[in-house]
Parts: sequence; structure tokens; C-alpha cells
Amino acid sequence: MNIQKGPLLYEGKAKKIYQTNENDVLYVVYKDSATAFNGEKKAEINGKGILNNEISSLLFEMLKEKGIPTHFIQRISSREQLVKRVSIIPLEVVVRNVVAGSLSKRLGLKEGIEIKKPIIEYYYKNDDLGDPFINQAHIELLEIATKEQLAKMEEIALKVNDILTKYFAEREVRLIDFKLEFGVAEDGTILLADEISPDTCRLWDAKTNEKLDKDVFRRDIGNLTDAYTEILKRLGGTVPCTK
Amino acid sequence: MNIQKGPLLYEGKAKKIYQTNENDVLYVVYKDSATAFNGEKKAEINGKGILNNEISSLLFEMLKEKGIPTHFIQRISSREQLVKRVSIIPLEVVVRNVVAGSLSKRLGLKEGIEIKKPIIEYYYKNDDLGDPFINQAHIELLEIATKEQLAKMEEIALKVNDILTKYFAEREVRLIDFKLEFGVAEDGTILLADEISPDTCRLWDAKTNEKLDKDVFRRDIGNLTDAYTEILKRLGGTVPCTK
Ligand SMILES: Nc1ncnc2c1ncn2[C@@H]1O[C@H](COP(=O)(O)OP(=O)(O)OP(=O)(O)O)[C@@H](O)[C@H]1O
Ligand SMILES: Nc1ncnc2c1ncn2[C@@H]1O[C@H](COP(=O)(O)OP(=O)(O)OP(=O)(O)O)[C@@H](O)[C@H]1O
Ligand SMILES: [Mg+2]
Ligand SMILES: [Mg+2]
Repeated sequence: MNIQKGPLLYEGKAKKIYQTNENDVLYVVYKDSATAFNGEKKAEINGKGILNNEISSLLFEMLKEKGIPTHFIQRISSREQLVKRVSIIPLEVVVRNVVAGSLSKRLGLKEGIEIKKPIIEYYYKNDDLGDPFINQAHIELLEIATKEQLAKMEEIALKVNDILTKYFAEREVRLIDFKLEFGVAEDGTILLADEISPDTCRLWDAKTNEKLDKDVFRRDIGNLTDAYTEILKRLGGTVPCTK
Repeated sequence: MNIQKGPLLYEGKAKKIYQTNENDVLYVVYKDSATAFNGEKKAEINGKGILNNEISSLLFEMLKEKGIPTHFIQRISSREQLVKRVSIIPLEVVVRNVVAGSLSKRLGLKEGIEIKKPIIEYYYKNDDLGDPFINQAHIELLEIATKEQLAKMEEIALKVNDILTKYFAEREVRLIDFKLEFGVAEDGTILLADEISPDTCRLWDAKTNEKLDKDVFRRDIGNLTDAYTEILKRLGGTVPCTK
């Protein structure tokens, strides 16, 4: 492939998406912006985009090898990757193994309680509404996804959870919870899309339970670059010089 | 039965529950208090308890005749009824036929949009947490109800919706949505419990869409006694003198 970057298609909070000379291929550039609480808290963190591009590329590559259908094509530079263009299904699919974050608040349970059977939650990707928590009946009403598509996403999400939980555990990291996005490719297949990184996962050190994810930024409890670098190291990735 | 009122067991926002000389029978007294927004808005409304006791007795009687398993035994005076004691399952089971209230806010849909297939929502009855919206996985995690109990509640809720929707329609009232509570009787059976009244249902006039329910109070758009009296009249009940 000889893919050239085309016009900017969409600028999000964490990434810029460009068209390319291939209709079904997009060019993703990871930015250094960190945001939390629906964009209320913001910062530029030098090197964050490089770290997330490395981590996400590495994890998508691994998931692809294990048979998960994904949008990932290849990492092409420190901040850039190529992905298959999909029509994003406006859902955040959250998988939880341990109580943390909004689940802890919603149910009044302490952070850290183990969940026997992984919990799946759906949030409606809609900035104006603040990405509300919804249920399957709401998804049907809004015609966000068909029952079959939803079942497929759930199946993939649980497989990804199994694979990632083991993969991280072997690297002394606990996968507490994470958010996935899915899209529909031109031929109708459901593909895992967007990114998987410490922005979208809660990752705790297996021994100390130290937080190695975006909660470091959300809660002002440490240095984001250090935490993300630690994750990249544990995954065996090449730690870039971001100084 | 010769049932005597015993000591007060529980005083809620809308009703007082007393023990009786029969272990499995409770004495319910409907109060005149109106509350909304988790108790933030409060008022005493002369006659409300009488109206709700009439309406709820009438509806439970009718549902019982149609084969719905309920806690209702009998109405015994203008404010009082006897019910079977159950262990309340801490869930609010909400059934929706038309978009209104929190669903309209959550999904950004206009009030009044018809829903093709009734939507069921679960809220965790927990005052400290503000009765949060939850999903089935949360119910399993909290061990609020077994899968079988949940399926049973859903089955009953949909039957009740069919029966009530028709019943109200024949009386020129649209059943927009409503909240049910269920309990477990001593022998393990799931019974429909609590009350069904304009406090727990959204009821709109079939011709004008005038609100004839607690939204009149929540939104300060009319006289609660007039609205509830209108519902009782449409149901063919005896309108009490509350002046
Ligand atoms: N393969 C893909 N094809 C098309 N769009 C994609 C693909 N992968 C991810 N996206 C979308 O590109 C955008 C990525 O940008 P970013 O993560 O910065 O967005 P965001 O600020 O989180 O905003 P949003 O609320 O839209 O997700 C997201 O909207 C994401 O859903
Ligand atoms: N058959 C029954 N057996 C036992 N408890 C019942 C029965 N029917 C209803 N209840 C419970 O009695 C209480 C009724 O009081 P009320 O409706 O005033 O409560 P509330 O202010 O709404 O508070 P809550 O949040 O506890 O429902 C509720 O907690 C309800 O669940
Ligand atoms: Mg994003
Ligand atoms: Mg109540």
C-alpha cells in the first residue's frame, strides 16, 4: 500500500482522523491532549499521544492475532496509525471486572471489590447529553444497533476482556475496566475500533494497586506520562524519548 | 378475618405501614403528603391519601381479577387497606409506552413520542444513592433478585401494562408510563406490591393530553386534587368529599 494522508475528517479530544487516497482507509494521529469529565478538565501532556499510539497499536496487533475483528491496519509512525474506515456505532461499551469509578458511585460499593461475572454497560455516545448510561431497550428505541449487532459487540467485548485480562496479568497489571467502541465496515462486519490505552482502561499495578491510567490525571494523583510509560514498558514496547 | 391494627412498622413519604394481629397481613394508611425529586419538594395536599387509596384499591382489585398475583387483600376505609406482608425487592420497575420525564432527558427525545415496544427500566430503591438507574448486570452483582425473579417481574410488568393500557384507554386516559414494586411472600411467590396511582403513573387525557398525575405537582401546572379526582371519576370510583 502507498497511502497518503488526505484532508482532516474529524478532530476529537484525543485524536485527529484524516482521509487518505484509499476510500476505506483512515489516518489516525494521536494528540497530546488529556481531557476528563466530558471535557471540563483539560491539559496538554507532552508525549501522551506517542505513548497511546504505541500502546494501542501493540494491543490491537495482539488482539488481531488472537482472531478479534478490528479496524487496525498498522502503526506508521510515532503518533500515527492506519485504520479501516468504519461507521462508528454511537455506543461506549464498558466492561468491568472490579468495582471502580462511576459504578462505585452508582451502586455505593467500595472501589476494588471483585466482580464475579464481568459487567457490561452501554453509554450513548452523545456529547450534548453527556454520554448517558442507557440500557438495551433504549438502544432499540434509538435504533443505535440491531439486536444482532448488539449481541456481536457483547460477544467480542467479553472475548477482548478474557484476552486482555490474561495479557495484562502476565505483565503484573490488573485490568479493572475498559471502554470499547465498535463500527460497521462497508461490508457490514462489526469491527472493534477507536483505541485501547490507559485513556480507555483502568489499569492497576498487580502488587500495589497503584493506578497506571487516566485516573492519575482525573484525580491529580501522580504523573500521567510516568504511569503510561510504565504500562508501555510492561507491555514490552519501545519507550520513546518524550523529554 | 378480624384484623386489628398493630404497631407502626414503617412510615414512608406516602404511606404508613402497620403490623396487625396476623403475621402475614399489613395495614396500609395513605397519607396526604406529596413529595417529588427524592423528597426535595414537599407539600400536604388535603384528600390526596383518600384519592390514592381509592384509585389503588380499584386498580389492584381489577388486576387481581385478571389473574395478576398481588399483595392486595381489601380496602377497609377511606384511607386504609389490608395487604399481604412481603419482603420488598428494592427495585423500581418502570414501564414506558410514551417518551416522558427522565427518559426524555436521558435520550434527548421529545415528550410524547410513542414507543413501539414497551421499555422496561430498573431503578435501585436506595434513598442514599438517589434511586439510581441500573441494569440487569448490576442487579445480579448486588444480588437484589435472581434471574428467575427478574424474569417473573418483567413478565408481570408487561401483563400489567397490557391490562392497564386497555383499561385506561376505555376511560379516555393514556397510560404513558408507570412504576411498579414487587415483593416476595412467605412462600417465595413474587407479588405485585406497593401502590398504583397518579403518584406512580403518568396519565394523560386521551383527547387533550392534559396531565392527570403527579407531574401536575412536580411542574406546578395545576391542581393535584382536581387531576386525581378526574382519574378516580374516569375509573368509576366514588369521589369522596375532601373539602
Ligand atoms: N476506524 C474508525 N473509523 C471512523 N471513525 C473512527 C474509527 N476509529 C475511531 N473513530 C472515531 O474517531 C474519533 C476519535 O477521536 P477522539 O477519540 O479524539 O474523539 P473524542 O474526543 O473521544 O470524541 P467522540 O465523543 O466523538 O468519541 C471518535 O469519534 C471515534 O469514534
Ligand atoms: N405488601 C407490602 N409489604 C411490605 N412492604 C410494603 C408492601 N407494599 C409496599 N411496601 C413498602 O412500604 C413502603 C410504602 O411507603 P411509601 O410509599 O410511603 O414509601 P416511600 O416514601 O416511597 O419510601 P420507599 O423509598 O421506602 O419506597 C415502601 O417502602 C414500600 O416498598
Ligand atoms: Mg474518544
Ligand atoms: Mg413509595
